[in-house]
Amino acid sequence: MATTDDDRRPKYQRIADSLREAIQSGEYGPGDRLPGENDLMAAHGVARMTARQALSVLKDEGVAESRKGAGVFVRSFRPLRRRGIQRLAQEQWGSGRSIWSADIENRTLVVDQVTVSEEAAPEQIGQVLDLSEGDTVCVRRRRFVLDGKPVLLATSYLPTAVVAGSAITQEDTGPGGTYARLAELGYKPVHFREEIRSRMPTKDEAAQLRISAGTPVILICRTAFADEGRPVEINEMTLDAASYVLEYDFDA
Amino acid sequence: MATTDDDRRPKYQRIADSLREAIQSGEYGPGDRLPGENDLMAAHGVARMTARQALSVLKDEGVAESRKGAGVFVRSFRPLRRRGIQRLAQEQWGSGRSIWSADIENRTLVVDQVTVSEEAAPEQIGQVLDLSEGDTVCVRRRRFVLDGKPVLLATSYLPTAVVAGSAITQEDTGPGGTYARLAELGYKPVHFREEIRSRMPTKDEAAQLRISAGTPVILICRTAFADEGRPVEINEMTLDAASYVLEYDFDA
Repeated sequence: MATTDDDRRPKYQRIADSLREAIQSGEYGPGDRLPGENDLMAAHGVARMTARQALSVLKDEGVAESRKGAGVFVRSFRPLRRRGIQRLAQEQWGSGRSIWSADIENRTLVVDQVTVSEEAAPEQIGQVLDLSEGDTVCVRRRRFVLDGKPVLLATSYLPTAVVAGSAITQEDTGPGGTYARLAELGYKPVHFREEIRSRMPTKDEAAQLRISAGTPVILICRTAFADEGRPVEINEMTLDAASYVLEYDFDA
Repeated sequence: MATTDDDRRPKYQRIADSLREAIQSGEYGPGDRLPGENDLMAAHGVARMTARQALSVLKDEGVAESRKGAGVFVRSFRPLRRRGIQRLAQEQWGSGRSIWSADIENRTLVVDQVTVSEEAAPEQIGQVLDLSEGDTVCVRRRRFVLDGKPVLLATSYLPTAVVAGSAITQEDTGPGGTYARLAELGYKPVHFREEIRSRMPTKDEAAQLRISAGTPVILICRTAFADEGRPVEINEMTLDAASYVLEYDFDA
């Protein structure tokens, strides 16, 4: 905790730095309680506001999180490893397994808030799916909850002309899910493009995903292509960034 | 701007929503100035603090940004499209081009803050690179500045035993860069793994990348493997999330 005279940064920043170092060195592990405002006031001889600011820095960085009435804790981060390429391999959905089964190991996955509807295609969706004026899309919305924690929101868009009358328009798409059904309809996905962005969540996204303060979302927009480069699905996903590591493995 | 009686959310939130909708519909485009506090006070009959909070919501989400003395503007987002797989294809660096030349189109790229040093391997790096106790690594740090805006910080670790005496230990690694040199040394990269995370930046990262408030960083950790799965490089990258779209294209 020693500070040199030429360290002109604000005191709360220096206290935050020393706490961060203690976390990085393992002195405080995931889920451990950090020193509270009173502890920091006593240890550093600072006012309550300074102690509070120091803890806020770590919360804003997503390193720590408040638990109501219990204090500030090192965030426990047991992220889901999402192997972008392997999980979409044809052997996966082609053999009736869900894409998610590749990700979740033995954890409990619940899919809730499922809605399926026929809607006018949003302009950008219509462009990417190569639709004509007035064509509609089948819109599938759902939320994925892992071990009780919402981790992902997904909205898929598929051309009505392709999926009408199939199980894709039902809540339960059946074994192998949407991609297995597309294959049966003659539109087997053979190529995928995933685009990844990150930003802070909107209020609604934060509520739906129960995201802690100082945590961004990762956006993945996936387009599935059938033979001859025909786009057959767009899936817009919003992920709690603290719940995920995305992995892509590929050859040079 | 009409609100119904049963909309119980705070007024600043509803003002923020209407501004966000106006941005999404294109009424305000990238770089456009948004209504200021005075405009919002007059239009909605609210106090200055409420108007300020409404603008803060959009800034926190990364949708808008303040420019000193000039107001609040829709963020101009002309992201770099980083094609994760194509850019690392052997034809790229094998023919003497830099990996970056695949990304930047006609924009101006400056690489600055380059340092190269021999260091003790951090524990986790040593484990992934399969090093023995006491082995050192060549550490290459640099910053990438695109059109005057810092967009990425990168730190590469390579086993000293592999790269000693080669141009990889120099500031300028020569045509095709590190991967072309590794190939000449008999360690041609044939496989890559990229792991992607996102979180809020630390104070230092925000300063080095000149990141606006409310913008996360994307972390990419890439491991390059030579024949027989031998790991030869780890590259830890920190990206300004507002400057990037990551794209991965692959077959089912």
